[in-house]
Order: sequence, then C-alpha cells, then structure tokens
Amino acid sequence: MKTRIGILGYGNLGRGVECAVRQNDDMELAAVFTRRNPADVSILTKSAAVCSVDDAADWKDRIDVMILCGGSATDLPKQTPEYVRYFNVIDSFDTHARIPEHFANVDAAAKANNHIGIISVGWDPGMFSLNRLYANAILPDGRDYTFWGKGVSQGHSDALRRIDGVKNAKQYTIPVDSALEAVRAGKNPELSTREKHTRECFVVLEDGADAAKIEQEIKTMPNYFADYDTTVHFISEEELLAKHSGIPHGGFVLRSGVTGWNNEHKHLIEYRLKLDSNPEFTSSVLIAYARAAHRLAAEGQSGCKTVFDIAPAYLSAKSGEELRASML
Amino acid sequence: MKTRIGILGYGNLGRGVECAVRQNDDMELAAVFTRRNPADVSILTKSAAVCSVDDAADWKDRIDVMILCGGSATDLPKQTPEYVRYFNVIDSFDTHARIPEHFANVDAAAKANNHIGIISVGWDPGMFSLNRLYANAILPDGRDYTFWGKGVSQGHSDALRRIDGVKNAKQYTIPVDSALEAVRAGKNPELSTREKHTRECFVVLEDGADAAKIEQEIKTMPNYFADYDTTVHFISEEELLAKHSGIPHGGFVLRSGVTGWNNEHKHLIEYRLKLDSNPEFTSSVLIAYARAAHRLAAEGQSGCKTVFDIAPAYLSAKSGEELRASML
Repeated sequence: MKTRIGILGYGNLGRGVECAVRQNDDMELAAVFTRRNPADVSILTKSAAVCSVDDAADWKDRIDVMILCGGSATDLPKQTPEYVRYFNVIDSFDTHARIPEHFANVDAAAKANNHIGIISVGWDPGMFSLNRLYANAILPDGRDYTFWGKGVSQGHSDALRRIDGVKNAKQYTIPVDSALEAVRAGKNPELSTREKHTRECFVVLEDGADAAKIEQEIKTMPNYFADYDTTVHFISEEELLAKHSGIPHGGFVLRSGVTGWNNEHKHLIEYRLKLDSNPEFTSSVLIAYARAAHRLAAEGQSGCKTVFDIAPAYLSAKSGEELRASML
Repeated sequence: MKTRIGILGYGNLGRGVECAVRQNDDMELAAVFTRRNPADVSILTKSAAVCSVDDAADWKDRIDVMILCGGSATDLPKQTPEYVRYFNVIDSFDTHARIPEHFANVDAAAKANNHIGIISVGWDPGMFSLNRLYANAILPDGRDYTFWGKGVSQGHSDALRRIDGVKNAKQYTIPVDSALEAVRAGKNPELSTREKHTRECFVVLEDGADAAKIEQEIKTMPNYFADYDTTVHFISEEELLAKHSGIPHGGFVLRSGVTGWNNEHKHLIEYRLKLDSNPEFTSSVLIAYARAAHRLAAEGQSGCKTVFDIAPAYLSAKSGEELRASML
C-alpha cells in the first residue's frame, strides 16, 4: 500500500516534494492544495488533483500525510496546528527560536486528534540538527561548529532587492576555508562572525542608480552585511539570469572533541552537504519523514515529533532485515 | 539516578569504555569483568570492582548495562546471547556478513529475558551505517561510497607480523585523494579496489632477514595486499614504537545523488571521521547507546536492536525540551 501524499502550498518546496514523490515507489501524490485558483495552477503529476486549500479537510480519508510547504514566518505557525487536526503532517519550520512554542502547539492539536506531526524537517533544522545531536552524544567534551554555504541566502538576497536603485540581486554565503581548516586540524578556534563566512553579492542596478552609493549601503547594512567581509559585483540582468538562477546551498557541521583518561586523543566528526537545489533536497528529507509519519501513525502513535524522536529505520522503504543485511 | 555500567573484557576497548564513562556525568562504572585473575588486573577507576567473568551473573541487579568488549570472531557470538539473559547489553559486533544471524540469536535471548541487546555499535558498523541509511532514504537515486583511513588496520598489521623474518609491523590504510575528489565532484566513478585505497607498511625485520624477499612477499600477499598499491618501509623497532604506537583511524561515507523532475540537480552528502584512537571513539559510541539501552529497558522494551532502531534523542543526556531548544 502506497503512502498517499498531499502537498499544501505549491512554490519551490511544493514542486520539490512533487519530484521527490516520483523518486519513491512506495509514495504517490494524491493532491496539491493551493491558495490560488486551482484552475490557474499547473502541476507535473498527471494523476494528482489540484484543489483549493479551502477544500483540504474533505481529503482527510484520502491522504496519509500532508506536507506543509508554506513559510515559517506566518504560514506554518498557523497551518501546522490547524491541519494536524485532519492529517498526519510534516513541516519544515525553521525559525529556531520559536521551535519550542511551535512544538507545543502542534503536540496539543496532534494528540487531541490522534495524528502525528513532524516539525522542522529539512537540513537545518533537520539533518544538521541530527548530526549535532549524535556528535554531542558521542563526544561530550568538545566544540561544535556549523558553516553554511556556499549557497544562496534568500533573506540576504531579499535585503539587497529592497535597496533603492537595485533591480535584482542574488547573495551567496561562503564559508571561510582557513576557518574550516583550523577546525579540521583540531585547533578549536574562537571564530568571530567575520572569520566564519564571507558574503558575495551579484546586483543588477536600475537605470541611473549610483553604484558606489549602493555598494556602500550594502556593505554597511546592519545584521545582514556589516559584520561580514562583503563583495559586491554589479552585473547585467541577463548575466544574473544566466549564471545565478539556481538555488544551491549546503554547509558543514563539525564537532571536535577529546577522549582518553587525560583527554589525550582528539577526534573530528564532520558532516557536509553540497546541494544543487536547496528546496529539492529539503523536499527529499520531507518525503523520508513522511514515510516515518505514516508508519508511526499506523502503529497508533500520536503527537508532535522532531527528527530527534524518530528511529532511522522508519525513514527507509527497506525492512529491518534488509537494512541489517545491506547497510549495517 | 546514574546508569551503572559493567565492562566485560578489559583490553583496548574496555579501557576506552572506562574513560568514556568518566566523561559522562550520568554514568558510573560498577565493575570490570575479566577472564584473567582479577588480582592481576589493575583498572583506572578507583570506585569500581574488578571481578572474574565467572561471577558476572551475580551482578545482575547491580548493573544497568553490560558492555561486551570482546572480539567478533569468537567472543561476541557466544557472549552477547549469553549475557543478555542477565543484563541489558551492548556489543560492537563487526562481522558484517554474520549480523543477521547474530541479531536473531540475541533477539531471542533478549526477549525471553525481558532485556535490551544493542549489537554492532561503533563507527563501522555504527555511525557509518547510520549515515548510509539516512543518505539512502533521502536520496533514493544515487551511489554510495565508503573510504577507510587514514588508519591502522589491525588485521593487516597482524598479517605482516605473521611473515617469517618480521619482528613487528604496522599497516596504514589510506584513501586515494583523487578518488575521493572524483566522488565529491559528482562524477560517480566506478572504482576498483586499487583505485580506492593504498596500503603503507612499516616493518621491523628480525636480524638477518631478507628485506627484498619480504617486501615481495608482502606486495603479493593475496586478499591483504596484492590488490592494492602497497608501500613498504623498513624501520627500527625504536622508530616503530616512537612514531607508530597509536591506533588512529577514520574514513568517509559519501552518497552522491540526483533530484528534480528530470534528475537535473546533483547533491552530495558526506560524513567524515578523523580519530586519534579507534578504540576510544568506538567506546564513546558504545556509552551513548548504553544510555539508550537503559532508557529503552526502563520503558519496558526488550529484544535486539541496532543503531537503526533507536531514536537519536535516546543517546543524549539532555531532555527533549533541552534538545529542541539547543540543537534543533
């Protein structure tokens, strides 16, 4: 029996989930739910329905797991507790500071309706979080380092585009190689914000805009750029579209620790992601956890879960026997 | 309440477990069990007992988790099913081909006695297995690569020492950089045994031994060296002891995969370990899973488990709330 997937919200992430469903034989896409007019939304999967988000609850017996593909700022804090009343749900809520509150809201609604809600699934939070947990549990005496990139930061690109005179822009976050190497060498460096990442901006100007003034405005923008070594390149819109249309990302989670009666031995645990498409990779993680949600619900479990609460075997289509024989 | 740990077998791994217990405030070492005369075995932990392995069963109410530190060839296949009758147990059984049979034996005995037995805990099998599973679940269309090293292979060092005229020896397994880089670049190379690893041998000769003949014998030894580019260095016993007494190891697990409606986006997941002490790192993983075993048993669970079956949160001394607030 296949896991019937619903997608709520059809942007980059929703389209990524649609592609990921197709890569997994035990999954099928039942329907996409949109706030737009369904007649105006064209999806790739011929066999799936396109419906208004207002009709989602009608599908409660035809969808095993609803994947919520909205944003963390305003969509998910409302949507996840709402839709877990009707469905097992997965979201990629990524506002780290608000996770405890979101967890509590989803947990109450999930338990009241005997559903599973898995929140904050993706790569950070998600796979990076898992690697922080495993590495901390194994090496209690140590230091954590996370580097992001090279990749496109949507928030920083948006900040650039809000500047007067900027027509379009993309921003890349880039880890500083020498900092990464110092961590790998077990030097346990204290790293300032500036020492960990650089920021590279590709900016298309409006006609007649003052490049020097805009470059200065970018480099001194508080929170976003002032604390970093920032490079600004002014390019044509054609070049931006040709060379900077992708949404790559990735990064590194490292833990450097010691063992031994006198802490005499050093160890390094490193997890790295290099992703051509941030939303498609996130979607692939969402689908693996959708499989887990379906299984947990079938076992009669309910409530809110995170990646920390789910045994790895639940993510795989293979049986326990197959996993032990092939991957252990 | 602390988790009371027993160690059965006091070699490199047992000593590593003893050190790891000290790094974890929620653990205490109750006793070490040895096949030697306990009076002849000196341990580092003043508060712990040293006992004969024959008396282990007497400790069944004073130990929460017994960590079995014997070898996979002959010790663990017998010990794990035997001691799970009295204790929750953890082992580092690493004969990949025999894991299904070992699992079945431990599972039957564990269930009959209402205990938890976690097998094949360490880094390979163990953390490497987990990373293979997670990466395969996320990227179903992809290829796996595992590289070991740079590190000391005990089996290959033993093979060198069995050669006539060799007094002492250490062998390092080394991943081939260019192969690793080809995988990282998403080239999905087909790699022969020779293309993945090289072997470097440091050999101390007996007086009068024929170096050229021994070098030839090493380089042509089937299974161990013939399929690899092998380098042999003849050194003095002093130099071997001074420079090659450590037991470092590590390696890389990579998965290279694609996503997108037309498989148009590439992704790379890489997990790397760089370990000064192979047995101490393995011990650190064992202790994290001992925490999980104690908790699972307290919940009333029983049977044989592997790293695949255990939710990550069970490994950490922190509560779910703390983990969500600090690591997610």
